[in-house]
Amino acid sequence: MSEKKGVGDFVVAGGTPALAEILPVGQLYFPSWDRYEAAMRDIFDRRYYTNHGPLLERLEARLEERFSVRHAICVTNATVGLIMVAKAFFRDGKILLPGFTFVGTAQSVSIAGLEPVFCDVDASTHHITPDTLEAAFEGGVRALLGVNLWGGAVDFGAIDAYARSKNVPVFYDSAHGIGSQIGGKSLGGNGLAEVFSFHATKVLGSTEGGCICTNDDDLAALLRNMRCGYGMGRIVEVPVTTNGRMSEAQAAIALMSLDDLDEHIARNQRLATAYEEELGDIPGFSVCKPTGVDSTNRQYFVCEIDDRVLKLTRDEMAKILKAENIYARRYFFPGVHRSVPYRSEFPQYLDRLPTTDALCSKLLQLPIGALVTEEHVRKIGNVVREASRNAEGLRKHLR
Amino acid sequence: MSEKKGVGDFVVAGGTPALAEILPVGQLYFPSWDRYEAAMRDIFDRRYYTNHGPLLERLEARLEERFSVRHAICVTNATVGLIMVAKAFFRDGKILLPGFTFVGTAQSVSIAGLEPVFCDVDASTHHITPDTLEAAFEGGVRALLGVNLWGGAVDFGAIDAYARSKNVPVFYDSAHGIGSQIGGKSLGGNGLAEVFSFHATKVLGSTEGGCICTNDDDLAALLRNMRCGYGMGRIVEVPVTTNGRMSEAQAAIALMSLDDLDEHIARNQRLATAYEEELGDIPGFSVCKPTGVDSTNRQYFVCEIDDRVLKLTRDEMAKILKAENIYARRYFFPGVHRSVPYRSEFPQYLDRLPTTDALCSKLLQLPIGALVTEEHVRKIGNVVREASRNAEGLRKHLR
Repeated sequence: MSEKKGVGDFVVAGGTPALAEILPVGQLYFPSWDRYEAAMRDIFDRRYYTNHGPLLERLEARLEERFSVRHAICVTNATVGLIMVAKAFFRDGKILLPGFTFVGTAQSVSIAGLEPVFCDVDASTHHITPDTLEAAFEGGVRALLGVNLWGGAVDFGAIDAYARSKNVPVFYDSAHGIGSQIGGKSLGGNGLAEVFSFHATKVLGSTEGGCICTNDDDLAALLRNMRCGYGMGRIVEVPVTTNGRMSEAQAAIALMSLDDLDEHIARNQRLATAYEEELGDIPGFSVCKPTGVDSTNRQYFVCEIDDRVLKLTRDEMAKILKAENIYARRYFFPGVHRSVPYRSEFPQYLDRLPTTDALCSKLLQLPIGALVTEEHVRKIGNVVREASRNAEGLRKHLR
Repeated sequence: MSEKKGVGDFVVAGGTPALAEILPVGQLYFPSWDRYEAAMRDIFDRRYYTNHGPLLERLEARLEERFSVRHAICVTNATVGLIMVAKAFFRDGKILLPGFTFVGTAQSVSIAGLEPVFCDVDASTHHITPDTLEAAFEGGVRALLGVNLWGGAVDFGAIDAYARSKNVPVFYDSAHGIGSQIGGKSLGGNGLAEVFSFHATKVLGSTEGGCICTNDDDLAALLRNMRCGYGMGRIVEVPVTTNGRMSEAQAAIALMSLDDLDEHIARNQRLATAYEEELGDIPGFSVCKPTGVDSTNRQYFVCEIDDRVLKLTRDEMAKILKAENIYARRYFFPGVHRSVPYRSEFPQYLDRLPTTDALCSKLLQLPIGALVTEEHVRKIGNVVREASRNAEGLRKHLR
């Protein structure tokens, strides 16, 4: 492992890596073996492994309490959750959503047999606004699917007012948002529903998993009956069902992760502060703080590169970092509207989302989460700073 | 616990239950804690919890070898697997499938935005035939979705020939079929794909889970890329993606269950033989042996009640058994075409599937699997035999 001082210290120029091992960009918070064993032995004793078991009920009750929402409906994963919400509203039709999102947001609409309509986002917040929605709104749009990014959020008041003006419901992909707060209140109760991800790369994890939050009793009853072929709780007639069940083992891990949520968020915030100290004054390399919330889970650490100033493109910086065992992610890249199958099925969006295109070429995510230490952050900061100082020299080695 | 000798011994007439505790109808085969712990500690050591991990790869390779199929693609659950196969073929259109199946078969078609067309089944095998398919085939049908029931199978040669004559592909819901064999060859390679369930109630279980088997390299590449938003293996362009990932923990349990598969099947076969000895000569109560295979996983023990002979209806027998803590299932009930939303959306099928309707009113499943012993079978046999002998007396207590 080497401290970078000049071009020759970089791996791309023949130096040794800044980190001895590859650092994942995600979170991968996981309980200790001892806690896991205790939870799993209980499941073994009960011989109740899945389908609305006692741990799932406890998890849902605790999520409802913690996030001050009437209903938390846990599911196999967030994509299945989004499919369920979309399908609870409509059998067919169009849903308006941003092109700047994880591909799963749009794919959940497509696999449900609905048609995505893509809008652009605001350059400073990376989120949808009434203006970006209005520029893309078209006949046949039956719902808005907002996306809350990076542990931040949209301006819920403005989006709600816009949705009301169009007389369409709005629901949210809040995969990034668990634990972030506005005015002391956690995300979860916005729009008709919010869908959270409990994937291993999130601050609240159940390996695979997710949760739909809603304050609408009727929608909750629908979703609980849609979650599996045989309803549970209040039995209502549903348009369609699927298998969206979360197993007891998933619920057990999520419960432990919920116990640790404040600690995970505090760790992320400490790491983010350390990053900000390291990276605060690099010309052409700026930190994107989550917007729209008072307190963020800091699930992502996103930076924006201005290559005219930095003299390195985002992709060049990512390449330099990767060689040092730092897997910084180009996220999101490409924009969903430029991914398969949308780029060929809906080519009309290729020149309609300039801000999305710009963000997709400028943003870089640095590793944060359970496996990242402040020592890692110092080393990554050293690499970025020195790469910036030696931009021109390094560029020659990238060709 | 009481041996039944007369009406007064039955719980419905004031007696004590035949079984001290409720017996689940399913399988619930699960590894011992020690084996589970060893597998999970490895996962913890690796810190690799999901997304095409080493256990998933090993599981898929072992399934491919065991079932002599080129590709085994493990998924979150069988419903998601069916959605993926349906969507791999078509973005929209109609799929022809039997009304006599688990509701998830049809719902996987509906949630994918495709339209189910229902056909009837054969009264003796409970399976589709070229005749039942032909009676329902209509314009716009783009694929056949066959269902293999009870550890048995359709006549694959006849169905394949029919599909070829109509120039449409056929794929199978083989949720019941893992380990069943024809001519020494396991199910898995029939049609364009077969989808198996690894739910806890199956002989091969991963709590929740499933697997798509196919010999078609192109379809396999499609499905592997559809399984998650970021492809794995051979990268191909896909019409749509979802999150169908099986986690490492699920894969670990499935691997252990695969080790035990022969043992599970042998246990089920022993239990079935014991049931057949107990129930062999009850007028109006006959055992439905799985058809179309040479060797069955005996995942279900299905009986047919002729109420004119037995003097008890299927529902009356189920009620008597339930009072004795024997949860015999009315499965499938109702037929999918009579379930929500199909009964109102497609009312044309309400009078078109007479054999399905008859089977739905006559079949009863008795408990089989990991938690059932030969002692249980003897007690259940005693209840059924004595209920049959005391039918008229018991009937008075059911009103």
